[in-house]
Amino acid sequence: MRQVTGWAAHTPGEAPRSWSFARRDPRPVDVVVRVTHCGVCATDRHALASGDPAAFPLVAGHEMTGVVEAVGDEVTDLRPGDRVAVGNIVDSCRTCVPCRAGRENDCEAFPTLTYGGEDRVSGGTTQGGFSTEIVVDRHFVHALPAGLDPAGAAPLLCAGITTWSPLRRFGAGPGTTVGVVGVGGLGHLAIRFAHALGAETVALTTSEAKADAAKALGADDVVLTRDPDALARQARRFDLLLDTTGHPLDPAPYLDALAVDGTYVLAGIPPRPLQIDPMSLVVGEKRIAGTGSGGVPATREMLDVAAEHGIVADVEVVTPDRLGEALDRLGRGDVRFRFVVEMP
Amino acid sequence: MRQVTGWAAHTPGEAPRSWSFARRDPRPVDVVVRVTHCGVCATDRHALASGDPAAFPLVAGHEMTGVVEAVGDEVTDLRPGDRVAVGNIVDSCRTCVPCRAGRENDCEAFPTLTYGGEDRVSGGTTQGGFSTEIVVDRHFVHALPAGLDPAGAAPLLCAGITTWSPLRRFGAGPGTTVGVVGVGGLGHLAIRFAHALGAETVALTTSEAKADAAKALGADDVVLTRDPDALARQARRFDLLLDTTGHPLDPAPYLDALAVDGTYVLAGIPPRPLQIDPMSLVVGEKRIAGTGSGGVPATREMLDVAAEHGIVADVEVVTPDRLGEALDRLGRGDVRFRFVVEMP
Repeated sequence: MRQVTGWAAHTPGEAPRSWSFARRDPRPVDVVVRVTHCGVCATDRHALASGDPAAFPLVAGHEMTGVVEAVGDEVTDLRPGDRVAVGNIVDSCRTCVPCRAGRENDCEAFPTLTYGGEDRVSGGTTQGGFSTEIVVDRHFVHALPAGLDPAGAAPLLCAGITTWSPLRRFGAGPGTTVGVVGVGGLGHLAIRFAHALGAETVALTTSEAKADAAKALGADDVVLTRDPDALARQARRFDLLLDTTGHPLDPAPYLDALAVDGTYVLAGIPPRPLQIDPMSLVVGEKRIAGTGSGGVPATREMLDVAAEHGIVADVEVVTPDRLGEALDRLGRGDVRFRFVVEMP
Repeated sequence: MRQVTGWAAHTPGEAPRSWSFARRDPRPVDVVVRVTHCGVCATDRHALASGDPAAFPLVAGHEMTGVVEAVGDEVTDLRPGDRVAVGNIVDSCRTCVPCRAGRENDCEAFPTLTYGGEDRVSGGTTQGGFSTEIVVDRHFVHALPAGLDPAGAAPLLCAGITTWSPLRRFGAGPGTTVGVVGVGGLGHLAIRFAHALGAETVALTTSEAKADAAKALGADDVVLTRDPDALARQARRFDLLLDTTGHPLDPAPYLDALAVDGTYVLAGIPPRPLQIDPMSLVVGEKRIAGTGSGGVPATREMLDVAAEHGIVADVEVVTPDRLGEALDRLGRGDVRFRFVVEMP
């Protein structure tokens, strides 16, 4: 076992503090990564604030960049010193249909989440990226393309892939109009990716203060959704609406804003059931879709496109002792647009 | 004006009876069709039982086959005596994006419904297919391929296209598994079309009595959904689930039965909002879609495929004076699988 330092909450709601814990010894197919940066996601906040008490002490964090420290004998394509990235999945069954299709995030036996999951090797509970080091199967370690700032790139591993995946899957590109609902951690990357893909990109936000920021990110237009008339004026405009808010919005006005065959994608996870009038789907033959993160091939494609277009997150870098404060501020929406913890 | 005979309800809930009314004179682009057969759809029952009182007297019916009686000067490709078919749309704006894409059913200015719509030519209210004759723009009159029985083919114009469209749009074919929920007017045609497209075809029904019928229609397997365990055993089986019931089913167990990227399509229109747990869409990255009928190109393709595979509806043919009785029996599900009115 390898002794590493993490920043753990010991009970739900406690601010994370320094904690020494053991990781499994690396196998021949594993990579030991020295974590340099880890983004702070709303999912971390949720898990740390109200997760299953049995999972504590809990080291959250699933948006990592770092440096290869050591590789197992069977790892031939990564070397110590290489810049790498790790996301929200560190293992999967590797044999089911989705896994073989490179959709490891949809593994039928459930993927091993980066923290709070059952380690398929050791049987223990996985611990996440707010730590100095992590041991991960080579398959789930991604080379970080040259030129991507490791602090800004860290959030690509969850916020980035979560928005990139549906943009690709639902055909965002030239000739399509994409609306990004919410300009936050996910939304600001969605705007950058949709713009890079060549889609007419529209930000939909309740916040007038974010309108200029959205344009600077690449939005061709901004719709302020506090004004219900402004949303009503978007009828049939969008081929794709990517709801990154995670709020239980009333889908009706957004469905009205979709073009024929348009899709409303839940990139965040609202905490309550959605109420959907069947007619709002039937008229215009529309769709509501869920989306997760992404498999290994999509993650690597996303990193390549990010490098090509210079896309990283706008981040506020904090030291691990300020993680609790960052989580509080994230809860109030007080960040532009992602906190990243830099490891000592 | 042309005086024709229809079978109209004069007030909501009244049994339809013979009624003489006027249709517009045909324009050079119109076709006069002598209606020989018209299917009885649940939508007809709903409109006649509880439609807008202002629309009465109401001649329902939107699944017609017939014979060309006369054509306008500009109609060069149909001649008197030709077998033709007319569906649930008799006009549209013809200029919007969906219309130009052959998705006239999604016309942005709303298509002219076969009955209860505002006639784009006369300004009057359209009257439907339970009548001896109808005047329709050539664009919305479909040649009936040789070999299709006109009684059995009539329901193809609504029940057929409504199931064909989503099967095509969502890629039903070899290597895919399609579940058809409900074995009725729509469902029995959906089974035939899914089978003809080469999909592994599964009927999902509450009725044990329909299991053999479903297999005879082409289902490779039948799942009896009164047993919740039977449905639970279908986890991740279906690429496409076509819900033809029109009932407000709990979508959760059906979403569980979808494979990754699978789509649950509402081919009927439940009368109440659906409650959807976002996680049931996110896990497996699934979709819920609405679907309407179909545009002109899809309708013609459907008729060609039906002719190629000998697909028509199983029908019980009745005379117009028995339309009221047929509507009552339809309401009780007492028909295998579609009533068709044969005009005198």
